[in-house]
Amino acid sequence: MISAFDHPFLSGLLGDDEIACLLGAGADIAAMLRFEAALAEAQAGLGLIPAEAAAVIGDTLKSFQPNMAELGEATKTDGVVVPNLVRQIKLAVGEPHAVHVHFGTTSQDVVDSAFVLRLLPCLALLDQRLACLAEALAALSTSFGDRPLAAHTRMQPAIPIRAADRIENWRAPLLRHRKRLRILRRSIAVIQFGGAAGTLDMFGESSPVLRASLASRLGLADRRQWHSQRDRLADLAGWLSLVTGSLGKFGEDVALMAQAGVAIELAGGGSSSAMPHKQNPVSAEMLVTLARFNAVQVSAVHHALLHEQERSGSAWTLEWLVIPLMLQAAGAATLTGLRLSSQIVRLGNPVTGKRPA
Amino acid sequence: MISAFDHPFLSGLLGDDEIACLLGAGADIAAMLRFEAALAEAQAGLGLIPAEAAAVIGDTLKSFQPNMAELGEATKTDGVVVPNLVRQIKLAVGEPHAVHVHFGTTSQDVVDSAFVLRLLPCLALLDQRLACLAEALAALSTSFGDRPLAAHTRMQPAIPIRAADRIENWRAPLLRHRKRLRILRRSIAVIQFGGAAGTLDMFGESSPVLRASLASRLGLADRRQWHSQRDRLADLAGWLSLVTGSLGKFGEDVALMAQAGVAIELAGGGSSSAMPHKQNPVSAEMLVTLARFNAVQVSAVHHALLHEQERSGSAWTLEWLVIPLMLQAAGAATLTGLRLSSQIVRLGNPVTGKRPA
Amino acid sequence: MISAFDHPFLSGLLGDDEIACLLGAGADIAAMLRFEAALAEAQAGLGLIPAEAAAVIGDTLKSFQPNMAELGEATKTDGVVVPNLVRQIKLAVGEPHAVHVHFGTTSQDVVDSAFVLRLLPCLALLDQRLACLAEALAALSTSFGDRPLAAHTRMQPAIPIRAADRIENWRAPLLRHRKRLRILRRSIAVIQFGGAAGTLDMFGESSPVLRASLASRLGLADRRQWHSQRDRLADLAGWLSLVTGSLGKFGEDVALMAQAGVAIELAGGGSSSAMPHKQNPVSAEMLVTLARFNAVQVSAVHHALLHEQERSGSAWTLEWLVIPLMLQAAGAATLTGLRLSSQIVRLGNPVTGKRPA
Amino acid sequence: MISAFDHPFLSGLLGDDEIACLLGAGADIAAMLRFEAALAEAQAGLGLIPAEAAAVIGDTLKSFQPNMAELGEATKTDGVVVPNLVRQIKLAVGEPHAVHVHFGTTSQDVVDSAFVLRLLPCLALLDQRLACLAEALAALSTSFGDRPLAAHTRMQPAIPIRAADRIENWRAPLLRHRKRLRILRRSIAVIQFGGAAGTLDMFGESSPVLRASLASRLGLADRRQWHSQRDRLADLAGWLSLVTGSLGKFGEDVALMAQAGVAIELAGGGSSSAMPHKQNPVSAEMLVTLARFNAVQVSAVHHALLHEQERSGSAWTLEWLVIPLMLQAAGAATLTGLRLSSQIVRLGNPVTGKRPA
Repeated sequence: MISAFDHPFLSGLLGDDEIACLLGAGADIAAMLRFEAALAEAQAGLGLIPAEAAAVIGDTLKSFQPNMAELGEATKTDGVVVPNLVRQIKLAVGEPHAVHVHFGTTSQDVVDSAFVLRLLPCLALLDQRLACLAEALAALSTSFGDRPLAAHTRMQPAIPIRAADRIENWRAPLLRHRKRLRILRRSIAVIQFGGAAGTLDMFGESSPVLRASLASRLGLADRRQWHSQRDRLADLAGWLSLVTGSLGKFGEDVALMAQAGVAIELAGGGSSSAMPHKQNPVSAEMLVTLARFNAVQVSAVHHALLHEQERSGSAWTLEWLVIPLMLQAAGAATLTGLRLSSQIVRLGNPVTGKRPA
Repeated sequence: MISAFDHPFLSGLLGDDEIACLLGAGADIAAMLRFEAALAEAQAGLGLIPAEAAAVIGDTLKSFQPNMAELGEATKTDGVVVPNLVRQIKLAVGEPHAVHVHFGTTSQDVVDSAFVLRLLPCLALLDQRLACLAEALAALSTSFGDRPLAAHTRMQPAIPIRAADRIENWRAPLLRHRKRLRILRRSIAVIQFGGAAGTLDMFGESSPVLRASLASRLGLADRRQWHSQRDRLADLAGWLSLVTGSLGKFGEDVALMAQAGVAIELAGGGSSSAMPHKQNPVSAEMLVTLARFNAVQVSAVHHALLHEQERSGSAWTLEWLVIPLMLQAAGAATLTGLRLSSQIVRLGNPVTGKRPA
Repeated sequence: MISAFDHPFLSGLLGDDEIACLLGAGADIAAMLRFEAALAEAQAGLGLIPAEAAAVIGDTLKSFQPNMAELGEATKTDGVVVPNLVRQIKLAVGEPHAVHVHFGTTSQDVVDSAFVLRLLPCLALLDQRLACLAEALAALSTSFGDRPLAAHTRMQPAIPIRAADRIENWRAPLLRHRKRLRILRRSIAVIQFGGAAGTLDMFGESSPVLRASLASRLGLADRRQWHSQRDRLADLAGWLSLVTGSLGKFGEDVALMAQAGVAIELAGGGSSSAMPHKQNPVSAEMLVTLARFNAVQVSAVHHALLHEQERSGSAWTLEWLVIPLMLQAAGAATLTGLRLSSQIVRLGNPVTGKRPA
Repeated sequence: MISAFDHPFLSGLLGDDEIACLLGAGADIAAMLRFEAALAEAQAGLGLIPAEAAAVIGDTLKSFQPNMAELGEATKTDGVVVPNLVRQIKLAVGEPHAVHVHFGTTSQDVVDSAFVLRLLPCLALLDQRLACLAEALAALSTSFGDRPLAAHTRMQPAIPIRAADRIENWRAPLLRHRKRLRILRRSIAVIQFGGAAGTLDMFGESSPVLRASLASRLGLADRRQWHSQRDRLADLAGWLSLVTGSLGKFGEDVALMAQAGVAIELAGGGSSSAMPHKQNPVSAEMLVTLARFNAVQVSAVHHALLHEQERSGSAWTLEWLVIPLMLQAAGAATLTGLRLSSQIVRLGNPVTGKRPA
C-alpha cells in the first residue's frame, strides 16, 4: 500500500473511502460478473444460447467468488484479468453450459463496460458533493458576502471588493462543472460490446439487437463499440481535472488569505511538531496538491488516445493506472473542499465597531 | 524564430499558415482595437462617455497602427501589452477625448476578449477541416471499405475485419469532436468584461447593460467576468488535444499498416538522404508527434486553473505560452490528416484475381 | 486499494513486492523512529539532552508500535504524520524524558530523512536489476547477435543489421543509467536537518556538529538543509523516468518485432479470452505503459520545485503522491524487463538451412 | 510568429535574443554545413573520398547559401530538411565531386550533431548567467543578509530568520545546477554518426577511425551512435527544467514577499492599465510561468525516449518541437532572474531606528 490514496495513514489526509469502495477490486469483480450474467440473459432472449444455460450461468454468478490469488497470477501473464476470470466462471458453471459463458465477447467488452458501471456512481457522488459545495459557498456568501476584502491582482493589493465577489469566483465554475457532467454522463454511460475485434463477428445480423438488449439490461445507452476510440475517457479525465483545478483555486486563495490572518479566519488548522502555536491551512494546501496532481495525470489519458489498431494493451493499461487515481483525487478534493468550507469561521475583513462606509 | 511551427523550414512540415494568420500578433492588435472601439461606442450609447469622444476614438482606431517596438519594450516591464497600447491610443486620440479611451476596463478584459475574438475563426476553420476529414475518410471507406484487413489486438494479428471497420475507428471520434465543439463554442464565445478587479466598479447599476451592449457589438454572448475562472480555456485545451489525439491514432495505425506495405499503399512518402528507395510515411508520423505534443501541453492549461485571487500574472501568461501552440498543433494535425487521407492510394489488402476464401 | 500497483489482481501484472516492502508504511515508520533515536543519541553525545533521556528514548523506540488509526486521524488534520507520531512516542517515553523527544527538529526533517533512508535500498535494488538486465541482454547478444534483422527507420524496412546492433540500443542506455545512479546516489544520500525553519535555531554553534553526528549515525552524508530546495528529488524523478523510458523502448521494439513473428519468438505470451490461439506480448506492452506513466509523472515532481518560502505543504505533499508511484513503476519495469528478456526464445530472423552470405 | 518566445511584442517579456540567435535556423544551417564539410575532410584524410573532392566540397560550403523556400517545401514531404539540403549542396558542388557529398551518412547524423553543436554555446551562455545570478544573490546577501524576515512554513508565519537564510535557498540550487551541467555537458557534447541504420555500414573497419576523426574536427567527443538512444536529451530537458524550477521558486517567493510590501522592496514593477498606483512584480511572476512551462515540457522529452526501432520520425520530431522551447524558456528565466535580482532594492524587513528585540 504505497499510493497515498490507499495508505495506512496518508489516506486519512488524501483518501476517499466512498470512491475507494465504489471503484475498488470488489466493485470491479461485481461489475464484470454483472456483465457476464446480463450477456447470457440477453443471448438467451435472442435464442443465441439455450435458456437453461443462461439460467445456470445467472444462478452461478449470483454467489460466485473468484479465487483472487489465481486471478493475480494469471493477470501477470495475460495482461488482463478476464481470461482467468472466465475460466473460473466456466469451472463453476460446469458442463454442459460452460461453453456458453462469455460467448462472442472479449476482455475489453467486460473491462470497459465494468468500468463504466463503476464510474457512474462515482460521478453521481462527485456531482452531489459539488452541489453541497456550491451550497456551502453560497451560505458563506450569505453570512459574509458584504464584508470588504482587498482584491489582489498579480499578487498585489488592488481595489476593494466584497467577500461575495471572491466567493463567486469559487462557486460559479462548480455550477458549470455540474452542467458539463450532465453532458459527459450521457456520452460515457454507454455499453462497450464489440467482440474479438470490434465487429461482433459471432452474431451476424443479431448484433445490433443483442447489443441493445445487453445495454438495456445494464442500464447503459446502446452505442457502437469504442474499443480503440478513447475520447470519452479523455473527456472524463479533463472533467476530473477541471473539478480539482477549480477547487485548487479555492484552496490557493484561502491559503493566501490565511497568511496574514486578516481576510479569513479558519478553524481546525493543522498543528506543527516544531511550532505549537501554528494553525496550518492544511485543507487549503491539499486542494492545491490535488489540483496539480490531476493537472499532470490528465496528460496520460490524452496520450492513451493513441490506442493503436483494434486494441492497444499498452494504452489501455495506462488508463487503468491513471484514471482511478484521478477519480480518487477528485473524490478527495471534493471532500476536502467541503471540510475547508466548514472550517471558514470568517471571510472578509473583520468588522470593527463601525463598518467603514 | 525557434518554434517549429513558425520556423523557416520546419514550418513547411509542421506549420499552418491560416491559423498563424488568424491568431498572430496582427490579428491580436486588430482584435484589441476592436474591443476598445466597441467599448467606447457602448459607453457612448449609455451616456457614460460623450458621443463625440466615442466617434473620435472610433475614427482614430480605424487607421491606428501601434509602434510595435515600443509595445515590445513596454511589455517587458508591464507583463502585458495593454497599458502601453492604451497609452499610444490615447496619444493618437489626443485631447480632450483621450481620457475616455479604455474607460473603466482593464488589461485582462482586452486580452481575454481579443483572444476569444481570434479563437472563434480558428475553431471554425478546425471544424471545417474536421468535416472535410470525415468526408475524406468516408470516401476511403466507399472505395476500399470491403477489402479484408487483419485486425490487430495487442499488437498481434487477430481475426479478419473489413477496411471499413478500421476507418470507422478513425472517423467516428471526429464526428463526436464536431458535436463537442458546438457545445464548447457556446461556452467560450463570451465577453470578458470586469474592470480592475472583476466588479465593474466604475459603472454601478449600468454595469449589466454596458456589458451586454459591449458583448453584442463584438458578436459575443453576455456573461459575467471570468478573470480568474479559467475552466473554459482548460476545456478548449482538452478539445484541441482530443482532436490531435484522434488524428494521432489515425497516423499511428497508418504507420503500422505501412510497415509491411500489405495493408496500405501510400503515395508521396518522404525520401531519405541515405536510402533513396524508401518512402517514409511522414504525414502519419507527424500526426503521432502532434498528438503527443498536445497531450503534454493540455497539462499546462489545467495547471493554469490555479489562477490565484482576482488575477494571476503567472497563470495567465502560461496560457499565452501554451494555448497558441496547441491551436497551431491542432491546425497542423488537421492539415496533415487531410494530406494523409489524400496520400492513401489503397487501404486493405490487395485484391488479387480471386479473393482468398 | 485502487492503485494498480497495490491492487488485488492488477498488482500481479504491475506490482513490485520488494519495492512495496522497502517503501511502504511499515518501512516509513521504522525509518522515522530510526531518525528520532539517532537524533537523541547525537544530542546526548553533545550534551544537548541528558544521556539518560537518550537511553530511555532509544530503548522505547526499539519496540515502539504506533497506533496507526490515530496516526491516520491526526494526519487528516495536521497534514503530516509527525506531530501525532511524536505525541505517541512522548507518551511511551513518559516523564521526565518525553520533553527530550524530537528536540529542536521538525516534521520535514523526519519525513525527508526517512524518505532518503527508504529510498537508498530501493535504488540499490533497481541498480542490481539493471545490472542483471544488462547481462541478460548481453547474453541474448551472445546467443543471437549474429542473426540478420531488417533495420527499420521511420517505421519502414531499411538496410539489414545484426540482432546485436538492436540489442545494443537497449543495453547501452542501461549502463549509462547505472553510471548516472552513482552520481545521483551521492547527491541524494544526505541528511535533512534544519529545525523549524531550516536554521537549526535551537542549537546555535552546536548545529554543524550535531547535524554531522546525526548524519553519520544514519549513514548519510552531512549537508545543509534542503527543506525548500527540491532539485535532488526532481533529479531522482528524472532518473526513474530514464530507466522506464529506456525499458519502454525495449518493450516497444519487441512488440513491433512480434507483430509478424519473424524477427522474434517469444514464450509465455498472454492468452486472450476471445482468441485462444493468440500469444500477446504482454510484458513488452507493460514496458511501454510504465514508460509513458513515468514520463507523465516526472512533470509533477518538477512542478514541486516551486516549493514556496521555507516549507510548502502543497508542493511537498505532491511529492508524496507521485514519487512512490514512480519508484513502483521503475520497480515494475525492471522486473518486467527481466521477465521479457527471459521470454525471448529467438531474436533476429530464423536461420534456415544455410545462412545467406 | 505565434510562439510567445518569438512574438513581435510578447518576446519583449519572454524572449531571449541570444538563445534565439545561437539556436535558430541560421545557426542550424551553419552547423549542418560544418558537419558535411568536416565529414568530407575526415573521409579524404582516410582515403575514403578523393582529396580533391573534399577540397571542392569544403570551398563550396564556405559560401553556400541554401534556397530556404525549397528547403521548406521539401521538408514538408521528407519530414527532415537534410535530403533537400544535400541535393542543393550536390548541385553547388557539381560534377564530378557531388557524389562524395554526404557519403555514407544520414539525416539523423547531420541533424543530431548539428543540434549538439548549437546546444553547446547555449549551455555555456546559461552557465555564465547562472554564475552571474549566484553572484547577484550573494551580493544581495551581503547587502541585506542580516535583516530579519519572518520564515513562512505552510503559508503561515513561523519563526524569525535572516534574509540571508532565504537567499541561500535560492542560490544553493543554482550552484548545484552548474555542477550538474559540467557532467551533462560531457555526456552530451558527443558526435552522432551512424549512417543509414546506425552501423556505419559503408565504412567497414574504417568506421571507428572515421568517426573519431569527424568528432575531433567538430570538437566533440567520440561516442558510438545514439540514433535511438535519447537519454542524453531527456537528461538535458531535466536540467533545463531544474534551472527554471529553481528560478521559479525565487520568483514565487519574491511575489509572496511583495504582497504586503514589508519583506521586500522592488523597483521597476509593471504598470496597470486600470490602477496606475500599482507596481506589479512582473519579473517574479514570469519566473513562475517559465518554471511551470518547462515542468510540463520535460514530460514530452521523456515520452520521446520511446524511440522505436532504428529511427523514429515521430519521437524525433517531438524533440524538435519541444527542446528549443525549453532552451528558450531557460534562457528567458535566467535573463528574468538577473533582471529581478537587480530590481530588489531591499530584502528583509525595513530596519527602523532601533531593531526590535
